[in-house]
Amino acid sequence: MSDTDLSLPRPVVRLRPKAEARAIRHGFPWVYADELVTDRRTQALTPGTIATLEDAERRPLATVTVNPNSKIIGRVLDRNAEAVIDRGWIAARIARALELRARLFDAPFYRLVHAESDGLPGVIIDRFGDVAVVQPNAAWSEAMIGDIAAALTEVAGVTTIVKNGSGRSRSLEGLNEETVVLLGAIEGPIEVPMNGAIYMADVLGGQKTGLFFDQRPNHAFAARLAKGARVLDVFSHVGGFALACLAGGAAKALSVDASAAALGLAAQGAEAMGQGARFATRQGDAFATLEALAAEGAQFDLVICDPPAFAPAKPALQAGLRAYERVARLAAPLVAPGGFLTLCSCSHAADLEQFRAASSRGIGRGGRRPQLLHTGYAGPDHPMLPQLAESGYLKALFFRLD
Amino acid sequence: MSDTDLSLPRPVVRLRPKAEARAIRHGFPWVYADELVTDRRTQALTPGTIATLEDAERRPLATVTVNPNSKIIGRVLDRNAEAVIDRGWIAARIARALELRARLFDAPFYRLVHAESDGLPGVIIDRFGDVAVVQPNAAWSEAMIGDIAAALTEVAGVTTIVKNGSGRSRSLEGLNEETVVLLGAIEGPIEVPMNGAIYMADVLGGQKTGLFFDQRPNHAFAARLAKGARVLDVFSHVGGFALACLAGGAAKALSVDASAAALGLAAQGAEAMGQGARFATRQGDAFATLEALAAEGAQFDLVICDPPAFAPAKPALQAGLRAYERVARLAAPLVAPGGFLTLCSCSHAADLEQFRAASSRGIGRGGRRPQLLHTGYAGPDHPMLPQLAESGYLKALFFRLD
Repeated sequence: MSDTDLSLPRPVVRLRPKAEARAIRHGFPWVYADELVTDRRTQALTPGTIATLEDAERRPLATVTVNPNSKIIGRVLDRNAEAVIDRGWIAARIARALELRARLFDAPFYRLVHAESDGLPGVIIDRFGDVAVVQPNAAWSEAMIGDIAAALTEVAGVTTIVKNGSGRSRSLEGLNEETVVLLGAIEGPIEVPMNGAIYMADVLGGQKTGLFFDQRPNHAFAARLAKGARVLDVFSHVGGFALACLAGGAAKALSVDASAAALGLAAQGAEAMGQGARFATRQGDAFATLEALAAEGAQFDLVICDPPAFAPAKPALQAGLRAYERVARLAAPLVAPGGFLTLCSCSHAADLEQFRAASSRGIGRGGRRPQLLHTGYAGPDHPMLPQLAESGYLKALFFRLD
Repeated sequence: MSDTDLSLPRPVVRLRPKAEARAIRHGFPWVYADELVTDRRTQALTPGTIATLEDAERRPLATVTVNPNSKIIGRVLDRNAEAVIDRGWIAARIARALELRARLFDAPFYRLVHAESDGLPGVIIDRFGDVAVVQPNAAWSEAMIGDIAAALTEVAGVTTIVKNGSGRSRSLEGLNEETVVLLGAIEGPIEVPMNGAIYMADVLGGQKTGLFFDQRPNHAFAARLAKGARVLDVFSHVGGFALACLAGGAAKALSVDASAAALGLAAQGAEAMGQGARFATRQGDAFATLEALAAEGAQFDLVICDPPAFAPAKPALQAGLRAYERVARLAAPLVAPGGFLTLCSCSHAADLEQFRAASSRGIGRGGRRPQLLHTGYAGPDHPMLPQLAESGYLKALFFRLD
């Protein structure tokens, strides 16, 4: 059962007179702090409180969750202003998300719930077969984690559930860091089949939920270019692009990453694929390694650079764009004539045009001329609300160089 | 051999003092009329003349082709200002383009040359097995069509070559309309395998070169959504989305188009696939048919609308966006709950953000709420120069509706 006491009347919060009720009516999922009447009563609400949102004329608009400590003070849970937010409600949302993924993917390895876009604000759930990793990044979902776990078991039939409480989003909501196994047990990394490759996901100790499902279609596109190729995968993590390319027939692949643990998982994956002999790793700083490879005269038919977010937010934009340009400039000379360069950005603040311009500039400064073959985004298990263009964070540009 | 008389000294054209030589040095492929010194000698050049481009300080920049009748007065053929533009030069460019397509595709059905992006300004070549259809849309390529055909035969081994001289681009260059078979013979429509479907391409009488290869990855994504689905394909042409969806396991597909000839080819394709029983057509105006289907209470699990360019150029932008919104508004109510709506634009003037906003607005006015699953562009056989963002004309938005 829900922890919410349904016998109490629900708090009401109200938009300021000038705030845009139309956006909410048209599906915008957030209320910013300056749009809400933040009287003492509203400010005293426990983060995660479920409330009824009204417009300035006191007409009910939606059921929201309120966090007075967050810039996003309200998140729309349901357009029905009288919706009861309980385990059954959560289960229905998960079931709708599951229906899409079951249609899209042959095996149960995907992002099952992608927050606002799947109607569960702030909640990320990645699925690894019988294991689910939940990131409750908004206060309401931290408070209702028990209901979320129960609904997940009921709807998706998972037997192990991890709560991953790391990351920047939680601190913005005033939530602490805590990663725990809520149900079942985790014994070592999980084998994940994707694009014909096998990845090893460390769902307890790894980055984010252990694997980046969002790059799946971009891994697949790289694999189409990889037949017989010498592949360099920089910022490789657990071998995302490298192992997909080996599955696509690459002659050999070299993974570069700063994390020895991630590279160890990548090597385990290559072994599990029977491709250990074609796979190598090099631990170290990506920029330094790109420079070292150039000094060694190394050449590759396909180079992929998938760095962490250099421009996660607006203040970091200019420095971030310079970092993307530098990656492109250092990587381009390593590409053999007629070969391919894949550059990725997962920066919210850098839009496609800015990232493409920085990449092209870097390639030019690296002495090469590009054709742009393909622009890829996060896979369809990472849907977006059209109203939240910001959620289109991931871009992958596939260039062919002269 | 080339028709160009190499014994004569080559004309020289020069950038105006304020014109941007840096753009050319960085790979921008065009010189606009107001950037060039257009003295009487330059204005008297025969359209398609090969010339040396110099900067304002008389330093050689590139080999260009000049058309004094076009707003794009110069097109860069080669960064080498002394390049000899002959059959061998053309063959090398085609060979480079072919190398990419051979890596990307299992069967020789693709756009082989995509103009500027493949280093052959204004030249489009679509390949249908042993048949190539050439659109020489810039004056130089009309003048050198014999060399292009010979190079094509030599490099790609095609045995039949059609020159398709239709379309807006040619009239901008002052070229006439003329479609002729240059080599071999065409006997009826050509069977084209793509995404597991079979299309019938009428390379002499159809739209453009007879088939739209650019939509290939978007057809493929739609097919992933189509298993067991009732599919409606509006502006279907020769069955682009409908037949791919049937190959992907659709329960049934209905193609709507204004052209009875195109629908006849679609039906022939469905028959060739052994899917004739699941396929139906409805000839008529798309808007009227969408309204009629709504009046009939028809419901589909997947609706695709792939209209002609409503906003081909800037003056048509606002009217075009209204037309896209109207398509979305009329199509959304035909989608069953939890079903999918795919909306495409091939308008140069409407960028992704504008098209997405118009589409979302239309869906909202059609009474539905969307998730955006995927944004697709033209396939990788339609590469872009990063400097020519305009060439990113095709967008496909895949929505799931509540």
